[in-house]
Amino acid sequence: MARIVMKFGGTSVGDVDRIRNVARRVKAEVDAGNEVAVVVSAMSGETNRLVGFCDSMTNMYDAREYDAVVATGEQVTIGLLAIALQDIGVEARSWMGWQIPIHTDEAHGKARILSIDTTVLEQRLASGQVAVVAGFQGLGPNNRVTTLGRGGSDTSAVALAAALKADRCDIYTDVDGVYTTDPRIVPKARKLDRITYEEMLEQASLGAKVLQTRSVEMAMKHRVRVRVLSSFSDAPGTLVCDEDEIVEKELVSGIAYSRDEAKITLVKVSDRPGVAARIFGPLADANINVDMIVQNVSEDGHSTDLTFTLPRSDLARALKVLEGARDDINYRELTTSSAVVKVSVIGVGMRSHAGVAQTMFRALSEKGINIHVISTSEIKVSVLIAEEYMELAVRALHSAYGLDAA
Amino acid sequence: MARIVMKFGGTSVGDVDRIRNVARRVKAEVDAGNEVAVVVSAMSGETNRLVGFCDSMTNMYDAREYDAVVATGEQVTIGLLAIALQDIGVEARSWMGWQIPIHTDEAHGKARILSIDTTVLEQRLASGQVAVVAGFQGLGPNNRVTTLGRGGSDTSAVALAAALKADRCDIYTDVDGVYTTDPRIVPKARKLDRITYEEMLEQASLGAKVLQTRSVEMAMKHRVRVRVLSSFSDAPGTLVCDEDEIVEKELVSGIAYSRDEAKITLVKVSDRPGVAARIFGPLADANINVDMIVQNVSEDGHSTDLTFTLPRSDLARALKVLEGARDDINYRELTTSSAVVKVSVIGVGMRSHAGVAQTMFRALSEKGINIHVISTSEIKVSVLIAEEYMELAVRALHSAYGLDAA
Repeated sequence: MARIVMKFGGTSVGDVDRIRNVARRVKAEVDAGNEVAVVVSAMSGETNRLVGFCDSMTNMYDAREYDAVVATGEQVTIGLLAIALQDIGVEARSWMGWQIPIHTDEAHGKARILSIDTTVLEQRLASGQVAVVAGFQGLGPNNRVTTLGRGGSDTSAVALAAALKADRCDIYTDVDGVYTTDPRIVPKARKLDRITYEEMLEQASLGAKVLQTRSVEMAMKHRVRVRVLSSFSDAPGTLVCDEDEIVEKELVSGIAYSRDEAKITLVKVSDRPGVAARIFGPLADANINVDMIVQNVSEDGHSTDLTFTLPRSDLARALKVLEGARDDINYRELTTSSAVVKVSVIGVGMRSHAGVAQTMFRALSEKGINIHVISTSEIKVSVLIAEEYMELAVRALHSAYGLDAA
Repeated sequence: MARIVMKFGGTSVGDVDRIRNVARRVKAEVDAGNEVAVVVSAMSGETNRLVGFCDSMTNMYDAREYDAVVATGEQVTIGLLAIALQDIGVEARSWMGWQIPIHTDEAHGKARILSIDTTVLEQRLASGQVAVVAGFQGLGPNNRVTTLGRGGSDTSAVALAAALKADRCDIYTDVDGVYTTDPRIVPKARKLDRITYEEMLEQASLGAKVLQTRSVEMAMKHRVRVRVLSSFSDAPGTLVCDEDEIVEKELVSGIAYSRDEAKITLVKVSDRPGVAARIFGPLADANINVDMIVQNVSEDGHSTDLTFTLPRSDLARALKVLEGARDDINYRELTTSSAVVKVSVIGVGMRSHAGVAQTMFRALSEKGINIHVISTSEIKVSVLIAEEYMELAVRALHSAYGLDAA
């Protein structure tokens, strides 16, 4: 007997028939003798409908009221899933965030889970009742409903699994696991049986959309074994787990990419102490996240070129900020490009193997792909390249690291 | 300065623009220096959509889960109205049933309000904040969401007005007040300035759809002054109040009708003690409400004919019950008709004036309308007639009692 948290996203509960399908999957786990808590999202399209109501009312709404409105999507799904479970003979009841309660901070619209009181829930699980829990929502310090931000149901599920000390947290989605890269770009992409928390975290933050970044951070912190699998097939999925649980480690486990990139270059910035602070201070104040930064070697000893990347959607705002600070920064010219993408190679094997970056540079060079910016961390190497080469680069790297399926 | 509860039904909050319109009406009361609590229904069509989800899942659902699902309709409206109010500079916040809380019993799907804790609400009202309260919902004894049954938002509003000791409860709807009868049948129908609780209660239970019966009972019990008015016009509406507040009492204040009637006659029932119990016992057990009953004078001293009315939708079920109990009741024949309607004359003036029923009988007889069954109470006379005469009867009675507008 195990204790399992199952999570189903919006597509998996998209209509009444799909909710019935979810109920059957839950029943299978119950019949196998497991204690089961199920976390569900809103029916697909529902959250957008509710957000649309708020948006069409005004563009400056109270986040507390927004949360009251959008949290209803999950409330509908838990009631319907509880009904579907009871209908096939499974004892079940629905739980809203405030009923458990799932305590969060008061950052409405993007709240963080602080603690989950599992006392009653554990009694119910022990008595054989399935707990159907609303994802994405919690109870703030002022007795008001909070939401965790888009995709927050993954985080709800992992947090609940941690609080319940569950043996496993199964995230059912519309893909059947974590792949070495996007199969739409590389048909030879392979599904991974296992992936480490660290690699999954890099994948999530570098653009892969399988799991929400915060949910992976939480799984890693609490050592929750997360399984990603499809609600529409019976394939075994991918286990996200501790490095120790992976016997045959691959040097590189995946190639990620992100299209949401833009590049800014400041030409002939005077090279004196404190100039970086003069550039990045105002950007940080404007809440713009700068990602990769490269500073060229100064030719004349007095000036330098400085290039950095940022989310494409922030480009226009960043330009305004930098033009406003032109006198203070003192640069000759400013050039930008939004026709750039970031491609990343991820793998915990890099920690112990040299030459991983070299393989990347060689593979790209063989295809004639120019690298604009490079950044590295312990387990990933990212490069910024021209957008038109993206698919070519991803395929070349996938081959170069021996990831292609036989 | 007054304390006012305003209530807006589904049509009044049917879309984003109508919610903005409601916000403007609320602002007008706030600007006039009043303390305001607003009770709202779900956007029109929304409750049906949610009930539809439950119905399509199964036909035997857990009422607790049904309540969790359908209560979301009102939750969406309160959030949106609070946003709309803030957007035009009115301080406001939304309140779900469990947040106040509005305590109910645990009769899910048709719960009754037990008490409302107004401590926090009164502080907020005193500070100038508008309370936007979800109608139709409450918190059951087991910390679960309950709903009051269809039309329950009227009851929420009146109960809240009673608990807050409000000066007035304004029910905004899609008609501009209470009329002497249905203006679609009698174009000369007049809007009443005032009507007593007792008359309004008879109107509600005899088929008029302006207010929910339970809300009128509650208003009468707690002496809440209720005003019925339109959210789409500025007409003054109708005040539902105590008899003492009405100086010029009319003999008859309204003509009501109900099409939801069917008639059953048991021919030659043996006339012995206990026969009524043998007939109506099984019907009550089957949860069928019998309304008007008439027992003919026995001709032979041994048998009698017995006629009664019931809701048309229960006719088929009632026939099954009566055929099952045929041997026990011992009747010769059973005849039915669902081509009948009930027309009622209502007025507190009847208490002190004789001859009111006589006027009714004469008016109907002059038009050649045959009366099947008669029933009377202190302030109403109802007759059952053939359906085809309904409009004719209503118009004749409206004239006979001098209700026609000049």
